[in-house]
Amino acid sequence: MTSKIRIAIDMDEVLADTIDKFIEVYRRDHKTELLLEQMQGKEFHELLPEALNNSWRDYINKKGFFRDLKVMPGAIDVVKALCEQYDVYVVSAAMEFPNSLLDKHEWLAEHFPFIHWKKIIFCGDKIVDVQIMIDDRIRNFAGFKGRSILFSSPHNFDITEYERVNNWAQVADKLL
Amino acid sequence: MTSKIRIAIDMDEVLADTIDKFIEVYRRDHKTELLLEQMQGKEFHELLPEALNNSWRDYINKKGFFRDLKVMPGAIDVVKALCEQYDVYVVSAAMEFPNSLLDKHEWLAEHFPFIHWKKIIFCGDKIVDVQIMIDDRIRNFAGFKGRSILFSSPHNFDITEYERVNNWAQVADKLL
Repeated sequence: MTSKIRIAIDMDEVLADTIDKFIEVYRRDHKTELLLEQMQGKEFHELLPEALNNSWRDYINKKGFFRDLKVMPGAIDVVKALCEQYDVYVVSAAMEFPNSLLDKHEWLAEHFPFIHWKKIIFCGDKIVDVQIMIDDRIRNFAGFKGRSILFSSPHNFDITEYERVNNWAQVADKLL
Repeated sequence: MTSKIRIAIDMDEVLADTIDKFIEVYRRDHKTELLLEQMQGKEFHELLPEALNNSWRDYINKKGFFRDLKVMPGAIDVVKALCEQYDVYVVSAAMEFPNSLLDKHEWLAEHFPFIHWKKIIFCGDKIVDVQIMIDDRIRNFAGFKGRSILFSSPHNFDITEYERVNNWAQVADKLL
């Protein structure tokens, strides 16, 4: 371990575009169009017709769902640069969906091969001993004493209590 | 999250008897008898004949290896009691062996169903924000400022720098 400042970076909606995958599978399987503009301030699944209400959990539980997510624009280059200056950890609350564990591990190995396995954490509660946390879920900031950076995602649109970044270029501006 | 004291409990050689499994597979597959008495102060694989030197990594990488490990004696009852008084996390450095992730998740669900998924952490470096850590590997205590409790395992036999427990009854004596 080094004495560099430690950063915990979330996966879904921060490194990986999970919502884009949901839009795609609902279009393909249910001919249901989920529009980003309608998601602002809401969970995407609140837009689903009632009959499909809980179907998103079935998708998430399925092996493979997390394996082919798109990388968020700019994430690879900025995270690579962060790794030069900081002690970077990828911290994902993956434990609720055990079939996601191997998918997420392989996805990181494919797109972020410079992140060593020692720097990957799959958990529930994010009780990590870091100084900076970049996350789209404010529940992960609960009890965290460090610098919390909220990564914009439609569901957190209305939240004003945290330092915010809208994209990876803004992460670079703040931290590099 | 609660204000209870947080404990991080390791899996291999603390909750799960990994060495027993190695003894079994080497007996079965290689007619090689690994004796606990000869392991004291050593990694078990140092006892392997040269031709089998690195074979233990192949076992560990195989899906299923961690799924049927025996539970360490007394672990279930003591961990259950700890959960009443403490905020208990199971923290396993599983990330080096991605095929172990689902096995370990299922093993915990079978034997420790009272541990919620939010309280499970699979990682590399154990950078967890807890007050007490129970582990058989002193490398996991590096940089940890809390109370480090070394759980006896043959390989750590000679280490004297840490508070030590030899079994789960002794954990109960100290913490309950």
